Amino acid sequence: MKFDTSIPSNILFDLLNGISPDFPTSKRFLSNMKGMFSDEKAYEEMLKKENPLMYEFHEMNVPEDAGDLAFGMSAAYPGKVGDEYFMTKGHFHTVLETAEVYLCLKGRGLMLMENPEGDWAYEELTPGRMVYVPQRYAHRSINVGTEPFLQFFCFRGDAGHDYGTIETKGYRKLVVEKNGTYAIIDNPKWKQE
Amino acid sequence: MKFDTSIPSNILFDLLNGISPDFPTSKRFLSNMKGMFSDEKAYEEMLKKENPLMYEFHEMNVPEDAGDLAFGMSAAYPGKVGDEYFMTKGHFHTVLETAEVYLCLKGRGLMLMENPEGDWAYEELTPGRMVYVPQRYAHRSINVGTEPFLQFFCFRGDAGHDYGTIETKGYRKLVVEKNGTYAIIDNPKWKQE
Repeated sequence: MKFDTSIPSNILFDLLNGISPDFPTSKRFLSNMKGMFSDEKAYEEMLKKENPLMYEFHEMNVPEDAGDLAFGMSAAYPGKVGDEYFMTKGHFHTVLETAEVYLCLKGRGLMLMENPEGDWAYEELTPGRMVYVPQRYAHRSINVGTEPFLQFFCFRGDAGHDYGTIETKGYRKLVVEKNGTYAIIDNPKWKQE
Repeated sequence: MKFDTSIPSNILFDLLNGISPDFPTSKRFLSNMKGMFSDEKAYEEMLKKENPLMYEFHEMNVPEDAGDLAFGMSAAYPGKVGDEYFMTKGHFHTVLETAEVYLCLKGRGLMLMENPEGDWAYEELTPGRMVYVPQRYAHRSINVGTEPFLQFFCFRGDAGHDYGTIETKGYRKLVVEKNGTYAIIDNPKWKQE
């Protein structure tokens, strides 16, 4: 399905659950996240028992045009694999010099960011907080709360997604539960090239 | 004040009134809207008695860089000048081939759009509805409800605002109250070049 950006139109999002009745979401289940979590044993054991929906988001398939905008909602669900919170795969933009904004509408989460130069950062989001993901930063949403973490996002139409770099190298940092709250720790498996 | 897009950061918006405690808004009062409303007599009479805040919005002054994004909240307040609903001035983007998205978070309003080719359209917005303003379309927000009409907006950092064309030519259409609801009528003062 493609959203037509050539004519004025509107689309409805449910501000409570993020899902649009007008447009389907892309869904990522636990089974789609092989290799993404640090504790592989916990991952395999969980997958034997259940295959929960970890997150879903809109892919509007707008034209790859620098004058258009891609947008949608992202809903990341609560849970953990071992000590590590449920999260999105995360991605760089293929056109690396393009930013993205995420406005949190519900829940509590983190945006974890890092760039190829080795700078990294995270921002905590609760309803009304918007994170600015600068140019060149990979970004991953992490649900550190107990309800769905809902964000509206917007980026340049031609920015594209590069998932492969993250799938291969991982992130420098992990977000785990420690003493009842979240902690940012080094990723022991992170591969420096 | 400038929002720094070069480093990861977040900003808080109040989802109930749109105003950020972190960043000031630009404000447009009735006195800033001379010549924008059809009924000039009603405008002058109203201005003698009061000078209400008609709308306010964030100007983040992000870099004029095609890889950055401008964003913020727009709050348009309810009221009428004669039969015509309170509205924003409206603008084209200076870089005409750039789109904009507006996500309604509160209230009830219209987005009135027209392009230089003579196409025009409007979309009605209530909470959760997002309008896609295509490339080349001027756009104006109109509050047709009774409470503040609140929208989150996002567009390309270098798009820029061209207010002059609208101030000189006006819009092809007006939005007025008729029999207790809104009606779209031709603008008798619209200047065809």
